[in-house]
Amino acid sequence: MAEQTWVRLVTAQTPTNIAVIKYWGKRDETLILPVNDSISVTLDPEHLCTTTTVAVSPSFDQDRMWLNGKEISLSGGRYQNCLREIRARACDVEDEEKGIKIARKDWEKLHIHIASYNNFPTAAGLASSAAGFACLVFALAKLMNAKEENSQLSAIARQGSGSACRSLFGGFVKWIMGKTEDGSDSLAVQLVDEKHWDDLVIIIAVVSSRQKETSSTTGMRDTVETSLLLQHRAQEIVPKRIVEMEEAIKSRDFASFAQLTCADSNQFHAVCLDTRPPIFYMNDTSHRIISCVEKWNRSEGTPQVAYTFDAGPNAVLIARDRKAATQLLQKLLFYFPPQPDTDLNSYVIGDKSILKDAGIEALKDIDALPPPPEIKDAQRSKGDVSYFICTRPGRGPILLSDETQALLDPKTGLPK
Amino acid sequence: MAEQTWVRLVTAQTPTNIAVIKYWGKRDETLILPVNDSISVTLDPEHLCTTTTVAVSPSFDQDRMWLNGKEISLSGGRYQNCLREIRARACDVEDEEKGIKIARKDWEKLHIHIASYNNFPTAAGLASSAAGFACLVFALAKLMNAKEENSQLSAIARQGSGSACRSLFGGFVKWIMGKTEDGSDSLAVQLVDEKHWDDLVIIIAVVSSRQKETSSTTGMRDTVETSLLLQHRAQEIVPKRIVEMEEAIKSRDFASFAQLTCADSNQFHAVCLDTRPPIFYMNDTSHRIISCVEKWNRSEGTPQVAYTFDAGPNAVLIARDRKAATQLLQKLLFYFPPQPDTDLNSYVIGDKSILKDAGIEALKDIDALPPPPEIKDAQRSKGDVSYFICTRPGRGPILLSDETQALLDPKTGLPK
Repeated sequence: MAEQTWVRLVTAQTPTNIAVIKYWGKRDETLILPVNDSISVTLDPEHLCTTTTVAVSPSFDQDRMWLNGKEISLSGGRYQNCLREIRARACDVEDEEKGIKIARKDWEKLHIHIASYNNFPTAAGLASSAAGFACLVFALAKLMNAKEENSQLSAIARQGSGSACRSLFGGFVKWIMGKTEDGSDSLAVQLVDEKHWDDLVIIIAVVSSRQKETSSTTGMRDTVETSLLLQHRAQEIVPKRIVEMEEAIKSRDFASFAQLTCADSNQFHAVCLDTRPPIFYMNDTSHRIISCVEKWNRSEGTPQVAYTFDAGPNAVLIARDRKAATQLLQKLLFYFPPQPDTDLNSYVIGDKSILKDAGIEALKDIDALPPPPEIKDAQRSKGDVSYFICTRPGRGPILLSDETQALLDPKTGLPK
Repeated sequence: MAEQTWVRLVTAQTPTNIAVIKYWGKRDETLILPVNDSISVTLDPEHLCTTTTVAVSPSFDQDRMWLNGKEISLSGGRYQNCLREIRARACDVEDEEKGIKIARKDWEKLHIHIASYNNFPTAAGLASSAAGFACLVFALAKLMNAKEENSQLSAIARQGSGSACRSLFGGFVKWIMGKTEDGSDSLAVQLVDEKHWDDLVIIIAVVSSRQKETSSTTGMRDTVETSLLLQHRAQEIVPKRIVEMEEAIKSRDFASFAQLTCADSNQFHAVCLDTRPPIFYMNDTSHRIISCVEKWNRSEGTPQVAYTFDAGPNAVLIARDRKAATQLLQKLLFYFPPQPDTDLNSYVIGDKSILKDAGIEALKDIDALPPPPEIKDAQRSKGDVSYFICTRPGRGPILLSDETQALLDPKTGLPK
């Protein structure tokens, strides 16, 4: 293969996901093999996703990566694992139009450029690494013409970030923990696609926090090593919940879905608390949101909203339908109004049509919201929530064939 | 027995206690039988105690009770259980000096007046009901000349409030869950008295809270009914911890004691979180106190302080010795200084000699405290703690023979 100036680009977009039956605890730290199955819902990439462009060119002299415009190191084991595994599955590539021809054996010598961008704040605790590694693996597989199905790719993405494997599909996804030592059967499968249960509406409350949080990698390790409750959860409780959750999802049984989702979120945080030293991801604002949802659900007699919290204080609220979501947003904005100088457009982002349904067009409409009747002496506290994201269950990874959407320059292979 | 005007009084003082291996969950709601053994340390009654005067007179026409000066109803089952059980054990009483003679059978017809007073805020979540029921049962037993030992009395106090049974002794106390259906073997025994480990110093942070808390009776019931982790805790984990904790106490092994105390407090709060709906007793301030203690213990290489939290946000901190307690108080006052208009004398109460050892004589000394070196960017937040109580392990119930300390008038049997 002679020195040439061509650059081959692939751009993909991958969603993030939120677990409704939680993954917490690894049985193998390097391969990232979990102690139990987990189930997630994929979030609409229109509101939360990672876009990644990968490029190959004989002119590149090393692997490089840019995250949100800033170059970062690829030396970490997790990136290296993903690159190695995809390279091992690379096939011949021929692009007649561009005159590019890459033989299978060439991939070992060719270097890669990667540019990745999240359409949401990376630091907000919204599973950016899940979307990121899923997108990296998906894009690299397409670039290198790897023939693996998404489930196979999910087992590679898993080695970047465990929950990334669940971002290879839309709708509801199960990560099967697997049994083999090499982790080859620890992969994601789609339970149902995003059209199966399209009544659901998701509102995320991004909660302000003073506290620096324990990373989920460190936290999980500490829990596995010190919690006396984790093994009981993983071996006795979760397997039953997985069966029940699959059934609830398949039959669109919102009452069961909500009960399982809330219980499993709480139990995940319970085993965090049972860790030495204890891990607190939820804060007083998270607790208030739970209390608000629990009281409303109780007053309605049947669940309107499920809540789930990952390794941080943000609440992910899943409403049974659009009507419930509209009421939920009104209640949330009553309890957590924005600071006076906030732009409503940046306080409620994503699918703004729910805001319109809720009759809120300006900050004064928030001030005028009535207190939810199910809570006595409801207090309003400004500043406890940074912003809300309105979204819904969404689709899996896609390729963006329009080169104008690429994050790398098709001539230089460097960030645009 | 002819109509007479005499009044017979007994006044007792009983300590409160804090569990280091927690009681959470009943297997019998009426008899108050727990799902596991628990172990507590009795707090010095000089700083936290209940004083109760009980009186009997042929002139009383009904049972009456005053709590902190206010008459309350005795119709609740818990009061009735205690009154009934002690009356069943009453014996002949003869007071030659006063010319009082009460035959065993008369107790069924005689009415009782009760006045009880806590030397600490009742609503502050400091186990006032434990000290209260222990004191009621102890005082009634003396009044009625019941011959039962304190362990037998503890089984009666237990029927008023579970943890009350542990307030019948000083030092470290074990509540044995028992096996019989009638609860007769569910009682407290003293492990060691208060002199056995007199190095320990206890500092209680009374934490400000906006939230109304779930009562422990309701909370426990919900946990028993809905938590999938509680039974595992009660059956598999606590029995081992009880053995280890007894050993740690007997050998004054502070490192083991601290590790077990903290782990068990955290696990109790974990099962609360695993309850439907979840129960949160600790708040962000509680979490900050834990974090402060954990980081300090870690930086010292060996535990200096154990923490434990009951059904509320207040921290009970047990320091290994006076030196550790002095440093702890400095750290706590650094993180949680009083509001500017606070009187230092009401911000740190109890054993104020620790304040003196810490070199703090005025609010300006608190302002001048250096940040604890083990925490980077240590923030100070005024108003998160209401006040601190400095105390130590203490003795069990005593009789106050000096009638001037009685809460009821020896002539009328009414509150003074």
